[in-house]
Amino acid sequence: MRDLNVIFEPKSIAVIGATANPQSVTNVTFLRQLIDFGYPGRIYPVNPHADRVLGLKAYARIGDIPEPVDYAVCAVAASSAAQVMRECVAAKVKVVSMFTAGFSEVGEDGARLEREVVEIARRGGVIVLGPNCLGVHCPKSGLTLEGGIARKSGHVGGVSQSGGVAQVMVLSLAEREIYVSKLISLGNAADLNEADYLEYLGHDDDTRIVSAYLEGIRQPDRFLSVAEEVARMKPLVVLKGGKTPAGAGAARLHTGSLAGSHLVWEAVCRQTGMVQVDDLGDLTDTVQAFTYLEPPRGRRLGIIGVGGGFGVLAADECIRAGFSVPEFPPAVKAELQKYTPTAGTGLRNPVDTTPNSYVSPDTLAATVRAVAGWDGIDLVFMAFPTLFGIRMGLQYLIDGFGAVIGAAREAGKPLVIVLSTANFAEGETKSWELQKHCFAQGAPVYFTFRQAARAVARVIGYHERQSPGGTH
Amino acid sequence: MRDLNVIFEPKSIAVIGATANPQSVTNVTFLRQLIDFGYPGRIYPVNPHADRVLGLKAYARIGDIPEPVDYAVCAVAASSAAQVMRECVAAKVKVVSMFTAGFSEVGEDGARLEREVVEIARRGGVIVLGPNCLGVHCPKSGLTLEGGIARKSGHVGGVSQSGGVAQVMVLSLAEREIYVSKLISLGNAADLNEADYLEYLGHDDDTRIVSAYLEGIRQPDRFLSVAEEVARMKPLVVLKGGKTPAGAGAARLHTGSLAGSHLVWEAVCRQTGMVQVDDLGDLTDTVQAFTYLEPPRGRRLGIIGVGGGFGVLAADECIRAGFSVPEFPPAVKAELQKYTPTAGTGLRNPVDTTPNSYVSPDTLAATVRAVAGWDGIDLVFMAFPTLFGIRMGLQYLIDGFGAVIGAAREAGKPLVIVLSTANFAEGETKSWELQKHCFAQGAPVYFTFRQAARAVARVIGYHERQSPGGTH
Repeated sequence: MRDLNVIFEPKSIAVIGATANPQSVTNVTFLRQLIDFGYPGRIYPVNPHADRVLGLKAYARIGDIPEPVDYAVCAVAASSAAQVMRECVAAKVKVVSMFTAGFSEVGEDGARLEREVVEIARRGGVIVLGPNCLGVHCPKSGLTLEGGIARKSGHVGGVSQSGGVAQVMVLSLAEREIYVSKLISLGNAADLNEADYLEYLGHDDDTRIVSAYLEGIRQPDRFLSVAEEVARMKPLVVLKGGKTPAGAGAARLHTGSLAGSHLVWEAVCRQTGMVQVDDLGDLTDTVQAFTYLEPPRGRRLGIIGVGGGFGVLAADECIRAGFSVPEFPPAVKAELQKYTPTAGTGLRNPVDTTPNSYVSPDTLAATVRAVAGWDGIDLVFMAFPTLFGIRMGLQYLIDGFGAVIGAAREAGKPLVIVLSTANFAEGETKSWELQKHCFAQGAPVYFTFRQAARAVARVIGYHERQSPGGTH
Repeated sequence: MRDLNVIFEPKSIAVIGATANPQSVTNVTFLRQLIDFGYPGRIYPVNPHADRVLGLKAYARIGDIPEPVDYAVCAVAASSAAQVMRECVAAKVKVVSMFTAGFSEVGEDGARLEREVVEIARRGGVIVLGPNCLGVHCPKSGLTLEGGIARKSGHVGGVSQSGGVAQVMVLSLAEREIYVSKLISLGNAADLNEADYLEYLGHDDDTRIVSAYLEGIRQPDRFLSVAEEVARMKPLVVLKGGKTPAGAGAARLHTGSLAGSHLVWEAVCRQTGMVQVDDLGDLTDTVQAFTYLEPPRGRRLGIIGVGGGFGVLAADECIRAGFSVPEFPPAVKAELQKYTPTAGTGLRNPVDTTPNSYVSPDTLAATVRAVAGWDGIDLVFMAFPTLFGIRMGLQYLIDGFGAVIGAAREAGKPLVIVLSTANFAEGETKSWELQKHCFAQGAPVYFTFRQAARAVARVIGYHERQSPGGTH
């Protein structure tokens, strides 16, 4: 196994092809980004036609830089790539991240050039990222691939065939207060591929959850054994693109990937224990559940919420995702009757807390205590109607969150918050604020029961596989 | 057919059970709401223990009010409901909207009481809404059921078994700049039921699209013939709750509804031509497509967008929703080649416009012109990366929208905008602003390709049924 740590800890970075043109993608995506993000090492623009770029002294060639360079971003035309790689080898660069595109994704000529460039690098002991990639996100080392919006380091590692998808992964997770340890944009993955990085992340102490967006698989046999090994160690959450013929065609032109059939992929997920998700939102939802949720012991769900109609729809969604919604025994109903008015509410599961009238945080907590305290329930979904909460004042919701999360913790049952009404205008902004209060207390938050049910069902499935027979 | 116009045009309203308690749901949901929304008629609180409520002169009984009352909200305990209804009959009230709950949804005793109250009303010529309902939303007449956030009148009519779901329907549509003509919260629907209101909305000139959230169906035969009649006249978009056993149980306790089986419902939708949706977000998405989209002639889709990985995922989603994503002929590719750099992009469908570099609005428009101008395409989905747009400045996106919407219109092909990257923090707020620019120019906006594809496929299916053989 090659030592990949060098990729994530460069002490100096050169950007080959840096220009002063503010519309240049090279500057926006790489040089400006490194500077703005506060990369702590030395940064060297390489450009034969400039003395300075963005205020930094520029060098005509990488060989002119007076100190050793650990990491070079290559953003020149494909036709110059082989020459640049030779110069990087001569300059003893350790890693070349190739933004340059126009290789295997454009046809056989490009594929030949790609093989040539990688061959030069390998003979010279240089690791190649990409080509046709955005490089690495590793906030700990000052590396970002999304402009430096999500600055914190966290526990989620990942790979993404697509740089754009990698950016969205980082940002969508950051919205949930979840941050990335190390994320690699694979592009054409001509040197190291998804299996190499997944193996690395599986053993990486900074990484507790691994996420992946994959289009094609380069070394299927090796991938299978690596994925199985990683999935045994930590959750491996995978989104697969190119599952339809049109999608697969797009994947071939995007990163030269052979996407393979949908059915084969299903079998691969079952065999390896990878957690398969359906889209990018689902990936974020699922990583959120792995991050914040104590694993429930089973699928017997208590739903507390938000008005009759939403209770009906919530039960439908949760049953579809594989949960059971058992009816309460008389003792639980008798307890609930103390807190919920009879008329207009149900004492069954889902419990209706009639959100159109005032319900105190204490009453909400007592309701959670009654439901979570019953041993016929493994976990609780609690809906909060944002709109009502906003009418009652933000502090009401914050107090309510604290009360119900505390009550569930006392009862030893995981709790999921669903902010279930419309994200109308002002409500939208406040919803983001509200989420943070729940995250800080270890409760995941979703905006629909469908999202919550799908993501949490995946966490339960993962833990069932890890310790078969250990759950209900 | 009874004249239901009286429900939506009351010249005076009494709130029976109004109190000054600021935590009372009656005040929050009804009296305060009428005042704040600017209801233009006379408002009479009825409360035997108060002289004034919220600054308005109060009356002990409805019979004490010196003028005729068109519409009364009944918010007393169920045990007083029969007596109050007798007084309303004596006072010649035309409509009684019963917020009061504790009827058929709580069991056989409640059902008996419900029948008694409705019988009193019918003998006295009074229309009953509910019981166990929030009443009516009709901004034209100053009636609101959601606190008066969405104040405008529009073209979407509807019914909802659940008052909470009705509120969210109004607010979610308003987020898309779509407003309601008349929406009725059904509750237990003991007097008039869903069939009566749908028939009314089908013939209502204010209503161009009808939406419905239904749990159970009271008169199945009548419902079938009404739904078929309405669906022939205008789109009838229906969300059904209680499709699983747990959901159906919740529905029985929520509004006393017998929800019926999932399979029967599928057959009902096919037979009547109702447009079935899967959840509330889907309902809003679908109504948006009916509102803003010129009906496409078929399902041959051109996708322009947003980076390679997203193109792959977009193609997957659109194929799953029943679209085809045909490959471009050489002439279209040659045209596209002029505007899109070769390396790192695809000239196939989906087209990748490499959003990480600057692409001028003119270039975007030229790309749309090349794709939409080809007669092998019926419609275009155009992805805009919000995050990139925010880096480039809001004005860039607004100019871009204008350019591409104009180009599609010239080519005579419907265009859908997908704002496809993460709604990160600031981006979220701006996204709502950005949507309005598109709506104003008649283009629907979605945040994922899945949403767009599902909603637009339903519009195409509806129009195919309306004029079979008229599409590709």
